[in-house]
Amino acid sequence: MTKEKVAIIGSGNWGSAIAKIAGNNVRKHSDLFEPRTPIWVFEEEFEGKKLTEIINTEHVNKKYLPGVELPDNVVAVPDIVEAVKGATAIVFVMPHQFLAKTLEQLEGKVEKNAKAISLIKGVDVKGADIHIFADVIEERLGLSCSALSGANIADEVANDRFSETTIGYRKEEEGKMWQKLFATDNFRVNLVADVAGVSLCGALKNVVAVAAGFIDGLQYGNNSKAAIMRIGLIEMKHFCQEFFEDVKEETFLQESAGVADLITSCLGGRNRRCAEAFVTQKKPFDQLEQEMLNGQKLQGIHTAKDVHIFLKERGRLGAYPLFDKVYHICWDGLPVEKLTEGL
Amino acid sequence: MTKEKVAIIGSGNWGSAIAKIAGNNVRKHSDLFEPRTPIWVFEEEFEGKKLTEIINTEHVNKKYLPGVELPDNVVAVPDIVEAVKGATAIVFVMPHQFLAKTLEQLEGKVEKNAKAISLIKGVDVKGADIHIFADVIEERLGLSCSALSGANIADEVANDRFSETTIGYRKEEEGKMWQKLFATDNFRVNLVADVAGVSLCGALKNVVAVAAGFIDGLQYGNNSKAAIMRIGLIEMKHFCQEFFEDVKEETFLQESAGVADLITSCLGGRNRRCAEAFVTQKKPFDQLEQEMLNGQKLQGIHTAKDVHIFLKERGRLGAYPLFDKVYHICWDGLPVEKLTEGL
Repeated sequence: MTKEKVAIIGSGNWGSAIAKIAGNNVRKHSDLFEPRTPIWVFEEEFEGKKLTEIINTEHVNKKYLPGVELPDNVVAVPDIVEAVKGATAIVFVMPHQFLAKTLEQLEGKVEKNAKAISLIKGVDVKGADIHIFADVIEERLGLSCSALSGANIADEVANDRFSETTIGYRKEEEGKMWQKLFATDNFRVNLVADVAGVSLCGALKNVVAVAAGFIDGLQYGNNSKAAIMRIGLIEMKHFCQEFFEDVKEETFLQESAGVADLITSCLGGRNRRCAEAFVTQKKPFDQLEQEMLNGQKLQGIHTAKDVHIFLKERGRLGAYPLFDKVYHICWDGLPVEKLTEGL
Repeated sequence: MTKEKVAIIGSGNWGSAIAKIAGNNVRKHSDLFEPRTPIWVFEEEFEGKKLTEIINTEHVNKKYLPGVELPDNVVAVPDIVEAVKGATAIVFVMPHQFLAKTLEQLEGKVEKNAKAISLIKGVDVKGADIHIFADVIEERLGLSCSALSGANIADEVANDRFSETTIGYRKEEEGKMWQKLFATDNFRVNLVADVAGVSLCGALKNVVAVAAGFIDGLQYGNNSKAAIMRIGLIEMKHFCQEFFEDVKEETFLQESAGVADLITSCLGGRNRRCAEAFVTQKKPFDQLEQEMLNGQKLQGIHTAKDVHIFLKERGRLGAYPLFDKVYHICWDGLPVEKLTEGL
């Protein structure tokens, strides 16, 4: 049996955390994996040095995951084509807006029999079309692509706090391989045969987290917040069952990618926080994005807009009242006090 | 058709909140209910007056739900037999330790065709026997007894904050009657044909809330907390499916009584709070009960003990590792850092 050669595409906060785990596990399971683990790093300067150089000499991603040591078999590579050369197990972990360009660069450059896994949050909506990123990767590169999502705050995972995640696999043996690559005593990996469900949870929960933040801003209390989370979870599930095939109910209701990640996002997280500020500070979201997120986009409100456009095209707006309320409050001036009406 | 005559047995914080709702709804649905709604009040003095007198003249339960006006058709009655006289719809809402005595007083004194509903939290465990309180009421009084439970903090419900609850019914028409009695625009009532599931959720979630409090005390973060809540929810479901008949999975995974009440209890609530203090203040629970709860019992740790005894008798300890860990940490000196081991 030839050993898997892992490559990691993306080196932000989450990419670096997962590289630490994968780098340790390829050594632990040396019967299955080659030890060298290239990680593609978008080259930039940090404190007067190249980021790849910092990672390769000091074994820390000082810019995106300071204070966490990476194993020395994780090798930063600035050239993406070189990073995936010979790789048989490719991990995509980057903000979704960079995926299209990345796939363009990789087309025709990956091993034919390579497997991929997407750790990318979000969903690709174009009018009446909706796609998960695992499918986008699969179609563009011709690779079988699984998905990983869960209640995973990068810093907590990197610091070996107890947590769980879910892998949705295409074929069971691929799922098991990815599980070997990522599972540790404190990072538990469950497998489900549901790539779409796992992927969609990670996108749609942000819409619910915005609603939870509104409730916090209104100071309605934990009853109301739990009710909104429950209703949101059910809408997430219905949405995925309506528009995707072979989605499994338990992914939403029983897995880390579903109920647990929703909980994490509604307890902490930027979507909840910014939505609370929207209510208490009465500022528009574009201003809050500037002030609270350094100009980054707040995923939940943009996903709410994408979902709204999609549902409108499909003539199904009425079936998802919570998603719809969040959209109208964020983008259409609906008073936030109307959130719970007609749910 | 004869109209239902409602009686409410219990006038604490939750009993008073629910009396406000029921009192308004019997007037709203005057085709279905008689307006007069007696509420049995354990007579005591408050600020030099009888509590029944305060409720009947000032229409506020100043001791247990201050600041919330009760409709004047809610009539405080100090004699429990008089309170249920002629009643066809009896609401039990009291701490579970008072139920046995109450049933003793009521035996042979209730209408033969009356229906009952239990809003009592907890579960009755005696060694290898386990019973929900709806069954205890049903067997003792010969009434068909439903159950109501949900993410319901009494003060939030009394103040008309948006929230949800779940009624588990025996017969659908009974469920619909109870729904008419309790549902308002801001207090949404879902019906499920699952009395046991609804009842058990309200007891077992407190064990999980203790575990969540441990995680907070350990400062493990929201990932770990969400993971513990997810694992706890699955153990709750398995426990009920193993030991009770006709329990429905969706009661746990999709209803307010299940996932939403678990969330509320793990976000706020005394079980979470005391368990956190157990870790940070390093005091035993009996001391914390004195200091934090005025000497009241902390339900979660006692339910954990009951469940442990029950599972031991049944030879099924190994199947519920989270419940087991909570028991050993609370009662057996296991270091709290062991909580996540082997889950």
